[in-house]
Amino acid sequence: MSFNRTKEIQKTLPTSPIWQWNATEVALGIKHRAISSTEATKSVLERIKQINPKINAIINLMSEKALKQAEQADNLIAQGIILSPLHGVPVTIKDNVDVKGERNTNGGIFKDRICQEDSTIATNFNIAGCVTIGMTNLPEFAIRWFSENPLFGRTLNPWNPEITPGGSSGGAAAAVASGMCFIGHGNDIGGSIRYPAYACGVFGFRPTWGRIPQFDPSSPGGRTFASEFFSIEGPIARSVNDIRLGLEVLSKGSIYDQVWVPAPLTYNDYKKKRIAIVTQIDGMEIEPAIKENLIKTAKWLEEDGYIVEEIKLPEFNIAAEVWGKILIAEKTTMIGHYVEQYGSEDVKKAWKGMVYGAPGAKDMREYMLAIAKRDELRRIYNEILDVYPVIMLPVSGKEPFKYGEDLLGDEYFKNVIMPAQIPLLALVCLNYPSMSIPTGLKNGNIPQGVQLFASDYRADLCLQVAEDIERHTKMPFRFE
Amino acid sequence: MSFNRTKEIQKTLPTSPIWQWNATEVALGIKHRAISSTEATKSVLERIKQINPKINAIINLMSEKALKQAEQADNLIAQGIILSPLHGVPVTIKDNVDVKGERNTNGGIFKDRICQEDSTIATNFNIAGCVTIGMTNLPEFAIRWFSENPLFGRTLNPWNPEITPGGSSGGAAAAVASGMCFIGHGNDIGGSIRYPAYACGVFGFRPTWGRIPQFDPSSPGGRTFASEFFSIEGPIARSVNDIRLGLEVLSKGSIYDQVWVPAPLTYNDYKKKRIAIVTQIDGMEIEPAIKENLIKTAKWLEEDGYIVEEIKLPEFNIAAEVWGKILIAEKTTMIGHYVEQYGSEDVKKAWKGMVYGAPGAKDMREYMLAIAKRDELRRIYNEILDVYPVIMLPVSGKEPFKYGEDLLGDEYFKNVIMPAQIPLLALVCLNYPSMSIPTGLKNGNIPQGVQLFASDYRADLCLQVAEDIERHTKMPFRFE
Repeated sequence: MSFNRTKEIQKTLPTSPIWQWNATEVALGIKHRAISSTEATKSVLERIKQINPKINAIINLMSEKALKQAEQADNLIAQGIILSPLHGVPVTIKDNVDVKGERNTNGGIFKDRICQEDSTIATNFNIAGCVTIGMTNLPEFAIRWFSENPLFGRTLNPWNPEITPGGSSGGAAAAVASGMCFIGHGNDIGGSIRYPAYACGVFGFRPTWGRIPQFDPSSPGGRTFASEFFSIEGPIARSVNDIRLGLEVLSKGSIYDQVWVPAPLTYNDYKKKRIAIVTQIDGMEIEPAIKENLIKTAKWLEEDGYIVEEIKLPEFNIAAEVWGKILIAEKTTMIGHYVEQYGSEDVKKAWKGMVYGAPGAKDMREYMLAIAKRDELRRIYNEILDVYPVIMLPVSGKEPFKYGEDLLGDEYFKNVIMPAQIPLLALVCLNYPSMSIPTGLKNGNIPQGVQLFASDYRADLCLQVAEDIERHTKMPFRFE
Repeated sequence: MSFNRTKEIQKTLPTSPIWQWNATEVALGIKHRAISSTEATKSVLERIKQINPKINAIINLMSEKALKQAEQADNLIAQGIILSPLHGVPVTIKDNVDVKGERNTNGGIFKDRICQEDSTIATNFNIAGCVTIGMTNLPEFAIRWFSENPLFGRTLNPWNPEITPGGSSGGAAAAVASGMCFIGHGNDIGGSIRYPAYACGVFGFRPTWGRIPQFDPSSPGGRTFASEFFSIEGPIARSVNDIRLGLEVLSKGSIYDQVWVPAPLTYNDYKKKRIAIVTQIDGMEIEPAIKENLIKTAKWLEEDGYIVEEIKLPEFNIAAEVWGKILIAEKTTMIGHYVEQYGSEDVKKAWKGMVYGAPGAKDMREYMLAIAKRDELRRIYNEILDVYPVIMLPVSGKEPFKYGEDLLGDEYFKNVIMPAQIPLLALVCLNYPSMSIPTGLKNGNIPQGVQLFASDYRADLCLQVAEDIERHTKMPFRFE
C-alpha cells in the first residue's frame, strides 16, 4: 500500500464549498494539490457574484487578473515552487493603497487616480503568490468607523444591515465575514482594522510599527509622525492561523518603508499563561453585555489553565487623548482643507465631530509634548507587559454603532462615539500589536468580541492567546 | 605533550602594558586566564593616574568600585562563567547617563544629582561583567563639539592641546585614545560620538535608532521626537572589533526604552564589495587634505578588491537643515531657558550660534513637515543604500576645530562651524548606522579619518569595511 499524500490531506480538508474554508485550509489544499488556486479563485468569484450585490464590500473586482494570477500559482505548484504559506490564496486589498493599473480612490475621493506601481502591500501579496481578487470599500479619507462614500455607496454589515460593518476597513471585514475572500488587507490609524473585524465578527490584527512595510508610489512625499508611526497595515481573516500567515506574508521587508525593522516573528522564550483582563477604563463606560462577554472569555482561558487577573490600565484614556493631540493636529494641518473641499456633507460632519471630540494640539509645544507623553506611556506599559504578557480588554465600549450614529452632532460624537473607542485609540498611541477576536453573536445578529494586546513585535503572544479563545468559540460566519 | 590553552593564547597577546591593548585582546586574555580583570583594571588605573591630570578626560574616577567589579569578574571566570565577550574589561561612561550612586551632571550642570538607579547603559555594562572605571567629561548640556565646563574644566585632545577633543563625548574619546579605558561610552544627537572619535583618532560608532536601549531613571519623563529618535548611544574604541563587542554588549534589550527593537546584529546575505565615496557635498566645503584622505582610503579599499564609485548624495545638506528644524526647535522649546539660566557664558554663546546657524521650525506646521521630510529622505537613501551597501564620506569638512572656535560669534558659527558638520548632522537626521574611522595623523598631531554609513541595523556592513580600512592604517594611539 503506497502512501498518497494528496489523498491523506484531502481527507482533512472541509467538504463545504471552497469559499467557506479558511486561508490556512485553502493554502494547504493548494500546496498538496488537493485543490487548485484556480478552483479556489472561481469558488470565491462565484460567491462574490452572489453576495456582493447585497453588501457592496468589494468595489473593484479584478476577476480577469485574479484568474491569471491563479493560473500562474498553479503552474508554479506544478513545478514544485511554493512562494509562501499563502501561495495561490485569494485576498483583497483596501481601496486606499496602490495596486498597479487599478484606482486608489481612498474612499471615492481620487476618482481618477490610476496607480502606476504597486504598493508594498500589493508587492508582498504578489511575491507570496496570492491572488488579488478585488479592492474593498472604505469611507472617504478613511476617517470614519463606517464604510460608505458617494462614489461607491454603503457597505453593509453581513450580519445586520442596521449596524456599521466598521470602518475604515469595513469593506475588507465584510468581505472576509461573508466568504468573498480569505484574507482582507486593512489599515488602522484609529481602529480601522480592529473595529471592522469586531463589527463583522472576524479576526483583525494591527501589528507594531515597523512590522509590515507600507509605501504607496502615488504618495511619494514624506509622512508626518502619525502617518509614519500610527498608520499600520494588517490582515483581517476568519481564523487565527490565517492572521498568522497573513502577517508573515505582509511583513516581508521593503526599502520603501524606512520604518520597517528586521524583527523576528517568533521568539524562543517562555511566558507564563497569564493574562490581565480590563473591565473598567477611566473616561468611558463599558456596556454590561461587553463586560459579560469579557468575563465569559476570561473563564474560557481559566479553564485552559491561564492565570487571569483583573487590572486597571494607568492613564489609558490619556493615551487616547494623546492620539487626538498628535493625529488630529496633523490631519487638521495637512488634510483638513481637502475634507472641506472634496468631502461629502456626511464626512465633513463626522470629521467635525472627531475634531471636536478628540482635539488636536494647538501649537508646536503641545504637539511636541504629546509625542513625548506617548514615549513615557509606552515605557510604563512595557513594564506592565513584562508582568502580563497579554492584556485583554474591550474593542469598543459599545456594540457596533448603528449606521449614521457618527452624524448625530458634535456633542454626541464627543460624549458617545469617542469614549466608546478609547480602547482602539489608546492602543494606536501606545502602538502595541493588538487584535480583535470574535467570541460569538448576540441575538444572532450582533457580533461580539474582545481585544488583546502584547508587547512590541510579540504578535506571537497575541496569536497564542487568540487561538486559545478561538478553540472555545462557535463563531459562525455569514455563509448562508 | 599536552596542549596548554592559556599558554597558547598568551603567545598571541601583546607584550606591552595591558592598558595599551585593545578591548578584544583584554577580553581574550581574561577569558583564557592569561591575565585577570584585576590586572587589567590596575594597569588602567595606573595609566589614569599618570595621564588624566594632563588631559582631564575622566572627571569621576570610580577606582574602588572598579576593583570590586574586577574581583567579581575574576571570581566568575574561576567558575567558568563568562558574562559577555567583554567580561572583565574596563570601560567608561559619559557623565550624562545614570550610574547608581554616582553623579550625572550632564556637563557640570546638575552638580548634586546623585543617581538612585542605573541607566540601561550602566545596566548593560554591568550584566556584561564590564568594569566601570570612571565617568567622562562633556560640555554643559552636551551641546558643543568641545568638551569643557565650569565645574570640571577642559578636556584636552591627547594629540594636541590646541584642538578640541571633540564633543560632546570628548572625555570618552580622549580617554580611549590615551589608554585610560578600552571602551568609552558616548551618545550622539549631532555628531557627539563620531566627532570626538575623529578628533582623537579612534573609532566611534553611532547605531540605528532602537539598537541600544537608553533610559535614565533620573529623567523618567517622555522624550520629544529628537530625544527619542536622534539621540543614540554607542561605543568609542581603539579597534573595529572592540566596537563590535561594545555594540553587542550595549544592545541588549530593555523594556525601559520603548524604541528598542529586536533586530539581529548579523545577517546571512551577500553584499558586493562595493562602496560609494562622497567628496563633494552641497552647502559646504571639504578641505583639500580631507578630500585627499578620503581618496587615499578609497584606494586602500580598491587594492582589496572593492568597487569604489564616486556619487553625489541628494539633498544631503537639506537633511542637516531638517536636523536643525526638528532638534533646535525642540531644544529651544524644552531646554533653551535652562541654558540661559544655568549655562556659562561660553555655552550660551555657542548655543546662540547654533540656533542662529541651524534654525528650528518656527511653528507646528513647519515642525510636522520637517519630520515628514526626514521620512521622505530616508526612503530615498534606502534606495541608494540598496545599490551601495556602504557609503564613505568625511566626518567633518574641516580638521578638528581649535578650542574656542565655536565662540567666535553667530556669523562664524553659521558660515564655518555648521557647514563643516553637515556630514554629522545629516546622518543624525537620516539615522543610519554611521561610524568614524581613524586613518592616520597629519603632521604627527592632527588625527584624520573618514566616516561610513550603511542601511538600518546593518552595523555589520560598516564594521566589515571599517576592518578593511583598519588593516591599512598604521594609526598610533597616544601612548607615550
